[in-house]
Amino acid sequence: MGRSRILSGMRPTGRLHIGHLMVLENWVKLQEEYECFYFIADWHALTTAYEETEELKANIRYMLVDWLSAGLNPNLSTIFIQSHIKEHAELHLLFSMFTPLSWLERVPTYKDQLQQLGQEGKDVSTYGFLGYPLLQAADILIYKADAVPVGEDQLPHLEFCREVARRFNYLYKTQLFPEPQALLSRVPLLPGIDGRKMSKSYRNDIPLSATPEEVRERVRLMVTDPARIHKTDPGHPEVCVVHTYHEIFNPEELEETRKSCRAGTIGCVPCKARLAEKINAYLEPVRERREKFLHNPGILEDILAQGSARARAIAQRTMDEVRAAMGIK
Amino acid sequence: MGRSRILSGMRPTGRLHIGHLMVLENWVKLQEEYECFYFIADWHALTTAYEETEELKANIRYMLVDWLSAGLNPNLSTIFIQSHIKEHAELHLLFSMFTPLSWLERVPTYKDQLQQLGQEGKDVSTYGFLGYPLLQAADILIYKADAVPVGEDQLPHLEFCREVARRFNYLYKTQLFPEPQALLSRVPLLPGIDGRKMSKSYRNDIPLSATPEEVRERVRLMVTDPARIHKTDPGHPEVCVVHTYHEIFNPEELEETRKSCRAGTIGCVPCKARLAEKINAYLEPVRERREKFLHNPGILEDILAQGSARARAIAQRTMDEVRAAMGIK
Repeated sequence: MGRSRILSGMRPTGRLHIGHLMVLENWVKLQEEYECFYFIADWHALTTAYEETEELKANIRYMLVDWLSAGLNPNLSTIFIQSHIKEHAELHLLFSMFTPLSWLERVPTYKDQLQQLGQEGKDVSTYGFLGYPLLQAADILIYKADAVPVGEDQLPHLEFCREVARRFNYLYKTQLFPEPQALLSRVPLLPGIDGRKMSKSYRNDIPLSATPEEVRERVRLMVTDPARIHKTDPGHPEVCVVHTYHEIFNPEELEETRKSCRAGTIGCVPCKARLAEKINAYLEPVRERREKFLHNPGILEDILAQGSARARAIAQRTMDEVRAAMGIK
Repeated sequence: MGRSRILSGMRPTGRLHIGHLMVLENWVKLQEEYECFYFIADWHALTTAYEETEELKANIRYMLVDWLSAGLNPNLSTIFIQSHIKEHAELHLLFSMFTPLSWLERVPTYKDQLQQLGQEGKDVSTYGFLGYPLLQAADILIYKADAVPVGEDQLPHLEFCREVARRFNYLYKTQLFPEPQALLSRVPLLPGIDGRKMSKSYRNDIPLSATPEEVRERVRLMVTDPARIHKTDPGHPEVCVVHTYHEIFNPEELEETRKSCRAGTIGCVPCKARLAEKINAYLEPVRERREKFLHNPGILEDILAQGSARARAIAQRTMDEVRAAMGIK
């Protein structure tokens, strides 16, 4: 019958960068083949940042504009904000009744994150942070998603979600919830301009909304082969951030760039300038779409209203079935 | 300005007994002085019985009829079902974000109940059971209750609720939630007919809906002074269940009953018959009200619809304030 349904979300942590663009381009592609639900996970943002909510509203707006700029099409996809669909909270609560504490305590990422985020000075020893994968399971199952685009690292969360679905179906003698499949997506991983993981908080990112001039500046600051002092020194592209970017944004000139670098016939400055122009060309359609949405804020409201209505209708139908299966009128 | 608001709830675990009637009579009295919110805690019932939900609907109905029979007045009190007000689930989720796990793990009743219910064969090692006091805090705070009628044993839960209110107010720099006060209520504790705690599961209860004949039969089976074999043996009222009931239901004849028992001038059979008639007289108005509600099921729907509407309006107003304080549109 209809197309398979997929669901994915992102936390509104601020302006997106071109690392996120790689993920979004995958989402854009998926729109052609699947019935897509993409949501802004504002409740999830609270699990790690309940104290810093001043910018949440602005961050949601930035992210929505970034999504649309990247090419998400609200006529093809259902785009909505998690907290607008209260049914997620109800399903999460109902799931909590039969979900063993030990399942949550044993989610592989839990102890790691507890430690890592603790070191970053974030308090995540909360009831909500422990229940994070359960809220995610509710997010997915309430739309009966057939598949979820995930990276390898998120597989344990999806397996947890599948276990919750199985337990519900078993306890209440139903087939209400399908077990969502993993849609493993190979998304190119872009390093930050200093070679570390790209992150706004490291200030090593290239924002999706960067102007052409800002892109040139960020590329100019990129870390290159530290062994190459003079232009005529032979370079080592395999350790150069600029080269990693050429692989993605300039594949047609990749061979030639590599050769010139290794031969010491092109300096880092022109190599970077070439990359910056390629990135700028790549971002051109993104910028055009951004202009359209920025100068027409009413359209954002319309998109969210339409997405919420579509999502809510499905979520409410599922909750009617869930309540009936559990014996709650 | 207006009257102080109180809130209380009960889990729909089945037909109530005359032990519950003592609690309900306190609720009825409170109606005169307070703005009362009384709710049927069906979500809470799931925390300890997520597998046995077949009878939930029937139990809710029984309980509502029992409440009304006991004299709760839907024109004075707001009577509703917890799961009809989805906002409780949303507030519970939002509270979870900043509630330390350790607060929940250290609620005094938690470890006890885990062990006790575990021994009864109930699986309560769930995420939802751990979060039970947090859901309770949401139940109370969403109506900004000024006070909660509690027994001594529930004081730790109320203290937990006050801590949640304080933490919210502190984190989001607001005075949104008042800290509800304990309204310690001295409710007579009726033993079961075998002298143990009265409980449907022990089959030692007198159902609120018992017919006059059933009451006589239950009283006939009551445990009396085991040292008293013959009618003329001197009795010991202080160890006799029948006497405990005379204290509540027959205070005007209490002195005389005691004397006759100690003197061996009244046998247990007539003493019980006298008590049964007193209990039946006491239950007469309860039965009359029950008849009215049983033969007019439409009125139950109306009462719940009216109660839900009143409760929801307040809950929604609170949630608007909560979302604004937390920065979630």
